[in-house]
Amino acid sequence: MGKNILVGLSGGPSVAINSSLAGVIDAGLRCGEFTEVYGAKNGISGVLSGDIIPLSQYSDPESLRLLMQTPAMALGSCRHKLSAEDFQQVAKQLAELSVSVFFYIGGNDSMDTVVKLSRYFAETNNPCRVIGIPKTIDNDLPDTDHTPGFGSAARYLYHTMSEIIRDSAIYPVKSVVIVEVMGRDSGWLTLAAGLPRFLGGAAPHIIAIPEAHFDENEFIKQVEAHLVENKSVICAVSEGIRDEQGDYIGMSTKSGAVDSFGHTYLSGVGKYLEELVAFKIGCKVRSIELNVMQRCASHLAAQTDLQEARLAGEEAVRVALEGKTGVMITFKRECNSPYSISVSDTPAENVAGKAKDVMAEWFNLEDAAVQREIVTYLLPLIAGEPELLRDETGLPRYLLM
Amino acid sequence: MGKNILVGLSGGPSVAINSSLAGVIDAGLRCGEFTEVYGAKNGISGVLSGDIIPLSQYSDPESLRLLMQTPAMALGSCRHKLSAEDFQQVAKQLAELSVSVFFYIGGNDSMDTVVKLSRYFAETNNPCRVIGIPKTIDNDLPDTDHTPGFGSAARYLYHTMSEIIRDSAIYPVKSVVIVEVMGRDSGWLTLAAGLPRFLGGAAPHIIAIPEAHFDENEFIKQVEAHLVENKSVICAVSEGIRDEQGDYIGMSTKSGAVDSFGHTYLSGVGKYLEELVAFKIGCKVRSIELNVMQRCASHLAAQTDLQEARLAGEEAVRVALEGKTGVMITFKRECNSPYSISVSDTPAENVAGKAKDVMAEWFNLEDAAVQREIVTYLLPLIAGEPELLRDETGLPRYLLM
Repeated sequence: MGKNILVGLSGGPSVAINSSLAGVIDAGLRCGEFTEVYGAKNGISGVLSGDIIPLSQYSDPESLRLLMQTPAMALGSCRHKLSAEDFQQVAKQLAELSVSVFFYIGGNDSMDTVVKLSRYFAETNNPCRVIGIPKTIDNDLPDTDHTPGFGSAARYLYHTMSEIIRDSAIYPVKSVVIVEVMGRDSGWLTLAAGLPRFLGGAAPHIIAIPEAHFDENEFIKQVEAHLVENKSVICAVSEGIRDEQGDYIGMSTKSGAVDSFGHTYLSGVGKYLEELVAFKIGCKVRSIELNVMQRCASHLAAQTDLQEARLAGEEAVRVALEGKTGVMITFKRECNSPYSISVSDTPAENVAGKAKDVMAEWFNLEDAAVQREIVTYLLPLIAGEPELLRDETGLPRYLLM
Repeated sequence: MGKNILVGLSGGPSVAINSSLAGVIDAGLRCGEFTEVYGAKNGISGVLSGDIIPLSQYSDPESLRLLMQTPAMALGSCRHKLSAEDFQQVAKQLAELSVSVFFYIGGNDSMDTVVKLSRYFAETNNPCRVIGIPKTIDNDLPDTDHTPGFGSAARYLYHTMSEIIRDSAIYPVKSVVIVEVMGRDSGWLTLAAGLPRFLGGAAPHIIAIPEAHFDENEFIKQVEAHLVENKSVICAVSEGIRDEQGDYIGMSTKSGAVDSFGHTYLSGVGKYLEELVAFKIGCKVRSIELNVMQRCASHLAAQTDLQEARLAGEEAVRVALEGKTGVMITFKRECNSPYSISVSDTPAENVAGKAKDVMAEWFNLEDAAVQREIVTYLLPLIAGEPELLRDETGLPRYLLM
C-alpha cells in the first residue's frame, strides 16, 4: 500500500466543501498510516496533468480552521468526465506519488468518477482505493439524509428570504416579488426559502419546486388571489420549475426574448415570471436572482453543516483504512431532538448519475402537517453560527492555497 | 408647545433606519419634555390619512434593541411629494395629536419635505418644528461625512464581493463576472464593492462608478487585457454608469431587447454588459445583480452604522429641544484613528434635491494613493459586528409594528 493519499474537489462550490477537505487532511495525517496528503488542483483534471500540491503544510489547527471558513473550493474544481484513455494516466500519476487512496469530494457526477475509477483499479489489480465524499448545496444525493453544503445554503436562504420579505413590505402599493432559487432538478433549497412561512409567517405566499408541475395560469390566479389580501406577494421559485410536458418554464420555444444585440436568449425563470406578471396582472413586480451568493455566503454558514462536512472527510479516511473502495460517505439521521446523525457509506454506484427528489408526499405545501415535517427536517441542518476568525477589517479570514 | 412628537420614515429601506427610529423614541421619551412619540405609517402619507400609532409601547430596552436589528422600515415608507394642498392637512393632524415636532427620516427627497413643511409652519406662525434625520444606503447627501445606512450596505458589499471572488476562481476556464451595485447617481457603494482590491487583493479588476464616464469599447479592451493575466475577471459596476453623452449604459434607444412577450424592455446594466462581453469576446460570462439584499441584509449590519443611526435619532431630539427647525442632522469626521465623529446639523435646504458625488480626485481608482484614501474613508464605517438577539432557529429576531 502506497504511503500517501490524494484528494480532489469537483462540481459546483459550496460553503462546506473545504471543511471536508480539512477533515481528509487532518484524519489522513493523524491516523499514522500516511506520510503526505496530496491535493489535486481542479479535481481530476489536476490529477491528469500532474497539478498536485502537498497539503501537510496546511495541517496545523489554525490553517484547518481557516480552511473551514473559506468559501468555494480551495483546490479549484472541474467538470471533467473521465474518458477511457484517462484511467491509465490517473493510475500512473497515483503510482508516481505512492498514493494508495484517492478521495473525491463532489456530487453525483463526481460519484460517477468514483465508480469508474474504482472499477478500473479492480480490473487492473491495482490496490488503489477510491472514496467519495458527498457535497452539493442541492441536497439531491440518494442514500444520505442530507448532503454537506446544503445546510449552509439553506441557512442563507432562510435569512435572506426573511430580509427580502421585510424589505418588500414597506410600500402601500401592491407588488409582487419573485425570488429565483438554485436547484435545477430538486426543490430542497426552495423548501428552505419557504421556511419563513412554514415557521408561521405569511410569506413567501407561493413556493414552487421542480418536482411538482408548474402551471402558469394557475400561478397567475394564485398571485391575484394573494394580492387581494396582501400588499406584497412573495414567491420563492426554483430555477428548474417545469410545465406538465417537462419543459422548463420560460424556456419554451415560444419565447420571443431577444437581447440588446438582437440575439435570442433564455431568461431565467424569475425574470420570465416577472414579465408574465407584468403582462397578465400589470402590477409592480420585481424578480430577484439569488445567484451564486446562496452557494458562497460563508459569512452565513451553518455550524452544523461545517462540522458534519469535516466529519464526512474524517470518516472517509476511516472507511479507506477499513479497506473499502468505490463507496460514498452517507449520513443517517438518528434523532431529531436532540438532533444526531450516524455516518456510514454506500456503493457510489447508488449515487452516480442519480438524484433524490423531494418526495411526492411533500408536494402540498399548504398542508400544515407537511409544513411541520419540512421544518423538522430543515431546522437542525441550518443550526449554529460558527465563530469565525476575522481580520482587522471584520472580514472572515480565508485560506488561499 | 404641544406635548407630543411624531416621526415618519421615507424613501428606500436600509438596515439602519429603524435604529434612528429607536433613537427618536428613546430620546423623545427620556428627555422629559414629551408625553408620547407617535409614528406615522408610510411616512407623510400616514400623516395625511391619520394612520398614526403610539410608539411608547416599544420603548423598553429589549424592544428598542430588536427594532435596531430589524431590517427595512418598521413603520413602512412612501414616495409622496407634498403638494400645496397637503400642508393644511398635515398641520391639522399634528394639532389634533398635540404634536410639536415632526421628525422625518430619509434621503434628499425627504429633506425636500422637511424644507417645505418647516417653511409652511413659519409662514403660518405655527410653532411646530420639523427635523430631518439622514438615511440612505447611497451615501449621497451633502454636508455630512456619510449617511446612516451606508456603512451596513458597504459591509454587505465587501463581504459579498469577497465571497463572489472566491466563488469565481474555481474553474480553469476563462470567465468574466459582472456585479451590478446599487447607487444610480453616486458611486459610493461601488467603491465599497472595490474594497477587496483596495485592500491588496487582485479583484475586482474593473470598478465603474456613475460619476466617471463609461466607454464600452474601453471596457471591452480592459476586460480582454485582464483575461490575459487572470482566469476570472471580476467587474463591480454601478447600476447608474453613463456614457459621455450622459445616457445610461444599456438604456440607449439603440437597445433591441425584447422580453418573452415581445415587449421592448431595458435590462439592467449588469445584464447588458454580460450580453456585450458575450457578443464582443465570447467567453463564459455571468452577471450578478445584488438587488435589494444590499439594502436589507441586517445579518451583515455594521455595528458602527447602527450606533450612529441611533445617535442621529437621539441628536435630532436634542436639536429640536434647542428650538431649531428645517434642519438635518449631520456627521463630521473628527479623527480616523481612532475613528470618531461629532454630530451637528445643516439647513435641510442644503440637502433637499441635492447630491454628493464621489469627488473627481478619486476617479482614478488605479492610483495607490486614491485607493488608500478610499480605504481610510470606508473601513471605520463598515466596522463592528452587532451582537444580535436570535430566535431558536438562529434568525435575528425582528420587531414588527
